[in-house]
Amino acid sequence: MAYKDNYPSKLLSEAVDAISSLPGVGRRSALRLALHLLKQPSEHVHHFTEAIDQLRDQVKYCSCCRMISDEDVCSICSDRSRDSRTICVVESVRDVMSIEATGQYHGLYHVLGGIISPIAGIGPSDLTIKELCERVKALENPSSAELILALSGDVEGETTSFYIYRQVEGSGIKVSSLARGLGFGDDLEYADSLTLGRSIVNRQQFKP
Amino acid sequence: MAYKDNYPSKLLSEAVDAISSLPGVGRRSALRLALHLLKQPSEHVHHFTEAIDQLRDQVKYCSCCRMISDEDVCSICSDRSRDSRTICVVESVRDVMSIEATGQYHGLYHVLGGIISPIAGIGPSDLTIKELCERVKALENPSSAELILALSGDVEGETTSFYIYRQVEGSGIKVSSLARGLGFGDDLEYADSLTLGRSIVNRQQFKP
Repeated sequence: MAYKDNYPSKLLSEAVDAISSLPGVGRRSALRLALHLLKQPSEHVHHFTEAIDQLRDQVKYCSCCRMISDEDVCSICSDRSRDSRTICVVESVRDVMSIEATGQYHGLYHVLGGIISPIAGIGPSDLTIKELCERVKALENPSSAELILALSGDVEGETTSFYIYRQVEGSGIKVSSLARGLGFGDDLEYADSLTLGRSIVNRQQFKP
Repeated sequence: MAYKDNYPSKLLSEAVDAISSLPGVGRRSALRLALHLLKQPSEHVHHFTEAIDQLRDQVKYCSCCRMISDEDVCSICSDRSRDSRTICVVESVRDVMSIEATGQYHGLYHVLGGIISPIAGIGPSDLTIKELCERVKALENPSSAELILALSGDVEGETTSFYIYRQVEGSGIKVSSLARGLGFGDDLEYADSLTLGRSIVNRQQFKP
């Protein structure tokens, strides 16, 4: 083979290294993307890299809910029409976007920035749980407020939910979690048996 | 929905726009990649964008074969052990890399930088055909040299091959093209009928 490292140019090889560091992008796709960028006008490529640099350098997080935001307080926390006495606790920015996209929720959020995972070395102090506790503590008459734990249903999610529950237990705030059961439109035949079993045990009144 | 354009931040939205301009990357994947980059250390992201900017701004093309190169003359053209009297004409940088990866070719290349395509508005003058003709003209005793047309087998490829053939015809250089037929290991049952038909017509002597 004529080329060291299989690449005709060190610059190309370094760009492929960089692009293939993205999750889900292999070296073949990275090469395709690098050669695509090479064909684009210079300004287009600079605009591309600038958008990424600016996102990384200038992004802000809402001082209240820790969501990505262009302002110090995000558009949801500063929206007076939303119910400020309901706080939905989620793992990540994407979860907020997913719940917002449903159009079914009108309270505020709290983004943990991760989930408790001893294996990955992530403990409560790496997350925004302290800030959440302060938000709960600052609520007037907490027994009429609600904290929704909208974390994933795996071991880490359950652990984190339980940890947060123990932290806010004393305040008297109502703590709820997402409804679990068969998805709407799901076929019984293809449901996993744990979900199906729990759906029978936790059956709901029929609403015609 | 609380967010304009579905994104909580203009910076995030612009980064997603930029990333989803890449071929084969949709807006969902672009969001995933943008949020991944946001979690990386700042230096990592700067290294990523710098590698791409440097590739675009500093890349050179070999003055002889037009391949991507770090030098003015690429490592293949400057390799004295290669057969400088055989020139393999390919569409793109990737084709050179593919042929090099086979380890079966020891001549030089000529990268056209595209293919003649009236629909895409690409004519002979947009490619490096003129430079190719000059290379052929500069060869001593062209009748003992060879030009391999290694272009794709579609209409554009055939048109380009024919155009180049007409340009170099007078020089006396031997012009060949890639062998076409069933792939090695291909199953007859799944071969397309055009390839199969041509493979019967152009059958080769059996070499045991």
